[in-house]
Amino acid sequence: MTIVVSKLTLEDLTTGIRPPDRAAASRARRRQASLTKPPGSLGVLERLSVRLAGICRAERPAIHGKTVIVAAGDHGVVAQGVTVYPQAVTAQMVGNFLAGGAAVSVMARAAGVRLRIVDAGVAAELAPHPDLTRLRIGNGTGDISQGPAMSRAQAERCILEGAVLALEEVEAGADVIGTGDMGIGNTTSSSAIVAALTGEPPERTTGAGTGRTPAELVHKAEVVAKALAVNRPRASDPIDVLAKVGGFEIGVLTGVILGAASAGRPIVLDGFISGSAALIADAVSPHVRGYMVAAHRSAERGHRVVLRHLGLRPLLDLRMRLGEGTGAVLAMGLVEAAAACLSDMATFEEAQVQDRGDG
Amino acid sequence: MTIVVSKLTLEDLTTGIRPPDRAAASRARRRQASLTKPPGSLGVLERLSVRLAGICRAERPAIHGKTVIVAAGDHGVVAQGVTVYPQAVTAQMVGNFLAGGAAVSVMARAAGVRLRIVDAGVAAELAPHPDLTRLRIGNGTGDISQGPAMSRAQAERCILEGAVLALEEVEAGADVIGTGDMGIGNTTSSSAIVAALTGEPPERTTGAGTGRTPAELVHKAEVVAKALAVNRPRASDPIDVLAKVGGFEIGVLTGVILGAASAGRPIVLDGFISGSAALIADAVSPHVRGYMVAAHRSAERGHRVVLRHLGLRPLLDLRMRLGEGTGAVLAMGLVEAAAACLSDMATFEEAQVQDRGDG
Repeated sequence: MTIVVSKLTLEDLTTGIRPPDRAAASRARRRQASLTKPPGSLGVLERLSVRLAGICRAERPAIHGKTVIVAAGDHGVVAQGVTVYPQAVTAQMVGNFLAGGAAVSVMARAAGVRLRIVDAGVAAELAPHPDLTRLRIGNGTGDISQGPAMSRAQAERCILEGAVLALEEVEAGADVIGTGDMGIGNTTSSSAIVAALTGEPPERTTGAGTGRTPAELVHKAEVVAKALAVNRPRASDPIDVLAKVGGFEIGVLTGVILGAASAGRPIVLDGFISGSAALIADAVSPHVRGYMVAAHRSAERGHRVVLRHLGLRPLLDLRMRLGEGTGAVLAMGLVEAAAACLSDMATFEEAQVQDRGDG
Repeated sequence: MTIVVSKLTLEDLTTGIRPPDRAAASRARRRQASLTKPPGSLGVLERLSVRLAGICRAERPAIHGKTVIVAAGDHGVVAQGVTVYPQAVTAQMVGNFLAGGAAVSVMARAAGVRLRIVDAGVAAELAPHPDLTRLRIGNGTGDISQGPAMSRAQAERCILEGAVLALEEVEAGADVIGTGDMGIGNTTSSSAIVAALTGEPPERTTGAGTGRTPAELVHKAEVVAKALAVNRPRASDPIDVLAKVGGFEIGVLTGVILGAASAGRPIVLDGFISGSAALIADAVSPHVRGYMVAAHRSAERGHRVVLRHLGLRPLLDLRMRLGEGTGAVLAMGLVEAAAACLSDMATFEEAQVQDRGDG
């Protein structure tokens, strides 16, 4: 299958996302009750497995191929002093991903997760690399405290390109897709997106990011407030929010989420940045939420707003706040385990194990 | 290396457990600060990695080989109606483990974890199987509500045999050992052990197990109280506690924990039953606690007492209450990831990534 992005429209993409299959989920729920364990004893994993059955439209979903798509982009808002690392670090970290030295690289190797590294819009020109997908929708966004991050056309293109990436990965064998990000300054954009789409004030959606001091945090929340005041993103129009206060990597991840859902695959959301992409996706499609699995609860303050708004309970709570898809990689093992137990465990009858006396 | 259990003594075993290496842990802590990520951004995994360095006595610990030892045993206390499954299920589930159909079997396959299945003292004679280690320290324990579970000599033998299993697995390549259990009735024994060693009343250490109704729970706590009143286990003598109110599989797991620690390997504790074994090990050795990693917070009530007493924070909280080592298998991926990040991530210097402006 060759997917031609120029022919994909946002409407095609969203109308292709069906609600998860309730009949398959019901069959999975009944199957869970027949498996060789006390009912409910696998806790959260049982409920997750039933959701996976609905998402994959199969009583016994098979989740083996695991891919995390890591999108990188730069943010003009770094000019406002919202970060402690220089902008050059975005490009340098992409090099570190490709060389296998970053946290997500190391974790993915250990967990058997494939990484797809994407230049969504890094400010510096990156050298070509066989493992790097170069979308380069722009050379970093505009400074959102002064004007829009990108044009509406660029925002739409981010989403469509991201969707194609997910469809390509599904075609290549991914049974589950995870999201990851890299972008110095992107917690500021994400805080603005979350505030715009949920109506929460910037102080509630803004966390320390990689910063440290209370003064840095206050300044950052002020920059977020200014970005909202200058751009006036319309909450009813998620593409407008992405264009005005978003980021290229965030738009690509929005597309990855929508693309995975349209292909009937569960999507494992990393932390706060991925969460802001998920909020945009949720505002675009009425059904995509049913495909989302929250990997972990990030230590970044605004993430709790995202999780509450999406009604998602995270699988892990390890006080991580790195991004890159590290949380998604770690959670994929749990998603695989949940599906494997539902699909591959013996029933009481098959294993000739006696069930409770009263059945 | 051939380990001859008849020559191993409990004193050899406990004196062989040294405190974790503080110098290696300090070097690991410094290394963490040089790795390409904001300091602290891997949260719990960073602190875990520093502990693993101390346990493995290496700045860059290598954790690849992963083994969970699943010990099975029967409990005479089932005569008191404390369970909803019949005793025959213990033997049937061992068959299910060996056939690969149980939850722990399925999860271990998905996660690349080796399982070692051990008949510590199942009441029924099990058919020989190439993957079954038959210790058979007894044919199920005595009914602890009427008298002791086993003799003191049997209790000591459980521990020594368990330690040998751990040493064998380390010799065969395990870098980390996990614990798992199977035994209809063993939550009752564990509740009695936890009450005896922590001084908490039975109502605080007794949970529903596989049961359901409030009346079942009240009855079970009364049986635990009776077991303590009849046997009067001495809190100052953990072998006495194991002999009087324990179980063969619990004693074997106590030995597994002590053996892994004596070999300088981290030990990943599953849930409540493993926790009761850990409390016994902790009372036997002043240093073993430093080798323990709590896999998850079980939904079984008494587990919180165990975790508090051992000062352990679990990695996962998925409301699981199955045992078998399912929690340990799931957590091993996190332990491996923590060690891999510490050992294999690039430093800022190696990756030529700029650190924060103020270093």
